Amino acid sequence: MIWRSVAELRQAVAAWHRDGLRVALVPTMGALHEGHLALVRRGFALADRVIASVFVNPTQFGPTEDFSAYPRREAEDSAMLAEVGAHGLYMPTADEMYPAGFSTTITVGGVSEGLCGAARPGHFAGVATVVAKLLLQARPDVALFGQKDYQQLQVIRRMVRDLDLGVQIEGVPTVREADGLAMSSRNAYLTPSERAIAPGLYRTLTAMAGRLSAGAAADEQEAWGREQLQSSGFSAVDYLELRDADSLQRLDRLDRPGRLLVAARLGRARLIDNVAVVTK
Amino acid sequence: MIWRSVAELRQAVAAWHRDGLRVALVPTMGALHEGHLALVRRGFALADRVIASVFVNPTQFGPTEDFSAYPRREAEDSAMLAEVGAHGLYMPTADEMYPAGFSTTITVGGVSEGLCGAARPGHFAGVATVVAKLLLQARPDVALFGQKDYQQLQVIRRMVRDLDLGVQIEGVPTVREADGLAMSSRNAYLTPSERAIAPGLYRTLTAMAGRLSAGAAADEQEAWGREQLQSSGFSAVDYLELRDADSLQRLDRLDRPGRLLVAARLGRARLIDNVAVVTK
Repeated sequence: MIWRSVAELRQAVAAWHRDGLRVALVPTMGALHEGHLALVRRGFALADRVIASVFVNPTQFGPTEDFSAYPRREAEDSAMLAEVGAHGLYMPTADEMYPAGFSTTITVGGVSEGLCGAARPGHFAGVATVVAKLLLQARPDVALFGQKDYQQLQVIRRMVRDLDLGVQIEGVPTVREADGLAMSSRNAYLTPSERAIAPGLYRTLTAMAGRLSAGAAADEQEAWGREQLQSSGFSAVDYLELRDADSLQRLDRLDRPGRLLVAARLGRARLIDNVAVVTK
Repeated sequence: MIWRSVAELRQAVAAWHRDGLRVALVPTMGALHEGHLALVRRGFALADRVIASVFVNPTQFGPTEDFSAYPRREAEDSAMLAEVGAHGLYMPTADEMYPAGFSTTITVGGVSEGLCGAARPGHFAGVATVVAKLLLQARPDVALFGQKDYQQLQVIRRMVRDLDLGVQIEGVPTVREADGLAMSSRNAYLTPSERAIAPGLYRTLTAMAGRLSAGAAADEQEAWGREQLQSSGFSAVDYLELRDADSLQRLDRLDRPGRLLVAARLGRARLIDNVAVVTK
């Protein structure tokens, strides 16, 4: 079932709710891969009906970013979702999401600062606003997001709490290729030689995480990691930082559950990844 | 029935919804007067159950404004609402509304610019955020707001449309004293001699509206109105402007439905008012 309008979407979800069914939403920007399907599968464990949305949201791309180039594969996305057993797909038009005169923005302070928030001004306001809209349009009981976009996940958690959206937010572990590369629609931008370099991102994170867990200083490890990435072929490291796993505040050393987050450039791709850093 | 927590409020509204009843919410900052009661009475015409909220929202007051002085009369408010037949009163604590770590803000462009938006930076972001929270906490079918705060009403309409909040917003005509002064909790700040001057605000608006309807130029009428107010004893006129009734864009002359809006200082009160300006 494909819905193009808020009205159709709401009607379907309201009918399920009247029948006492629990509904899960998996918001995506399409170009689906195993990471997205893992969200749908996890949705089946948490709800009776699982729907996905596909919307390449213009407001979360900066003026020099890859909005036009971002892969769009509507027919394949739809087929993959049907195959995995999703109960519906919401594919709104840009006009349905942002009608004439649209002028409201949701900003989340704190967790959106630094990291991708510094590298991509306005990005998280775009994300927060479109996710709030999708949650209010669909009114699911639970919504699922990948931990691969960890800062985004924390921004959404904070917003949902702050605005009393009353939806359970479920973060799902990152799905990786056999060599450790986090699955991402943007991996399609990589040439074969860049693809061979890319797994170094995750290898560097896991090496650092082990030493940070053992008590190493963050600045020393971050310098080591940057050097590793640049010498292996990444052209720039936007950030590589140890942060508090919940508040995303900077940690000098692991004294509570942490998250190590990275963004680095490889050819025309900007890859992000992150791992948990656990206290011993 | 008085609820202090979101959980109690939601439980009550959900029970009514399960019974197929329509629920109206009247958000207020307390210090209730006939204007608020008119909102509740109008709610009875639109819904089966009408509840009010009383919360003096700190985030919509500027640092030099009257947050501390703003009148608080919880017992009287509660009695007035019971008397008029309201079915419930939500009086959250500041901690319930803004728990530790709160960091989300909703801003609405366009309609929030100029007028009170210029005179009170951050005011409408505070209003939009708290109203979104109240609507998401209570999940009413309809919410009622006074036309006396006309710009606020337009900001809320825009936000509700933009974020797909799915609530009907009802604007209710301003209730006035016998001499025309718009009812307001802030009228309590007026001394007897200021109170005698205050009705000049509405008289000036209605005189201007007649001439603007007949085709007079806005800037000429606005200059006349400012002069009237200042010579009658108002100490300053923050704004006095003809605007488009929906978008609140500036009008030079009435060529579509307009709204004439004013804010002026009298003693320690800042009074606002507005009237429709109808095309002939």
